[in-house]
Amino acid sequence: MSAVSAFIVLEGGEGSGKTSLLGGLSNALRQLHFNVLATREPGGTSEGLALRKLLLSADGLDWEHGAELLLMVAARVQHVKRIIEPALANGTVVVCDRFVGSTLAYQGAGRGLPVALIEELHDKLVGGLRPDLTVLLDVEPHLGLARSVRRLETAQHDEGRFETLKTAFHERVRADFLRQADKNANRTVIVDANRDYPFVQAEVVARVTEWLASRGR
Amino acid sequence: MSAVSAFIVLEGGEGSGKTSLLGGLSNALRQLHFNVLATREPGGTSEGLALRKLLLSADGLDWEHGAELLLMVAARVQHVKRIIEPALANGTVVVCDRFVGSTLAYQGAGRGLPVALIEELHDKLVGGLRPDLTVLLDVEPHLGLARSVRRLETAQHDEGRFETLKTAFHERVRADFLRQADKNANRTVIVDANRDYPFVQAEVVARVTEWLASRGR
Repeated sequence: MSAVSAFIVLEGGEGSGKTSLLGGLSNALRQLHFNVLATREPGGTSEGLALRKLLLSADGLDWEHGAELLLMVAARVQHVKRIIEPALANGTVVVCDRFVGSTLAYQGAGRGLPVALIEELHDKLVGGLRPDLTVLLDVEPHLGLARSVRRLETAQHDEGRFETLKTAFHERVRADFLRQADKNANRTVIVDANRDYPFVQAEVVARVTEWLASRGR
Repeated sequence: MSAVSAFIVLEGGEGSGKTSLLGGLSNALRQLHFNVLATREPGGTSEGLALRKLLLSADGLDWEHGAELLLMVAARVQHVKRIIEPALANGTVVVCDRFVGSTLAYQGAGRGLPVALIEELHDKLVGGLRPDLTVLLDVEPHLGLARSVRRLETAQHDEGRFETLKTAFHERVRADFLRQADKNANRTVIVDANRDYPFVQAEVVARVTEWLASRGR
């Protein structure tokens, strides 16, 4: 099975459980003897981590929405060219926490930046890579945000940037994720992430392994 | 004269004398009682300076050309919204060392990135601001690069990123600056920067003050 390549992206709002699932799904696939790379955005490369640090305002930096978008896409250029594409070329199942879908949802639908420009940046500068499978962890914003707040109270606060934006923003983000899922129905699975995490992970592992098996046939 | 606003951009290749001229021209205009803001790209804001540091590879970072473009534009978004536009709204002559013309010349013509996308980023994310007057300091690449090398030998090396690229690249950059000047002939002055610096400064100060005077009439 080592020759199987696939690009699987986890998308969803705050508190949807993506970060836990990145580890949980990757470990489950490794137990099935897939080569797996678990990675996340922004980040994944030293350049991306440097940008992530700038975006999280650790040094009191304050970004215009347009600049924020550009830094997100710059991190993705590095991530795709240096990490994701080489791994896919080498028989790896890449599981990625967020990708262009998050940029469309947060910077496009959420911030109101032009969606056509985001798509064009993805096609012309990132190179147009799209997920083979997107797992959308759909969660009601009020529930996801409540989970995030609990997590923030017990963890570092550098995750808080997008999580403290107001509920209307998160409603727009959720609606856009669902719109994207509808548009790409044949390569998206929507999972109800309002349930407790173990149920979510069990369903995701089952559906992703089923998809990988059907793909190998 | 304090109510005069104008956006004057200095463009040109390596070793054309832009940086000296930023100070020389600004001082000359101040002596004529204009309110002057001298600024440069990338930089100008704390966010831009942070990006400049990342771009100059101080920490061993290595950027894809597409990512480099995005960071340049992100710095410009911050620069325009936070520094340049407020200054222009407040009766200031802004003199800026490099602007979108450099991105078109270096990242577009030089690196081969899509020019239409660079224009679109400028219009949609930077907000479409264009110079009222561009001063193109035109210099033969072999001469400009020789000047840069002498400067690099006596200065910090953090200026070296674009200056060590090969001559063919700089020929493309120069040709593009001249093409832009031709396209925007009514708001560009081309100055022969192959001459010794004092002659260049004298001509630039004369032509810019003449332009400012004609504009006030």
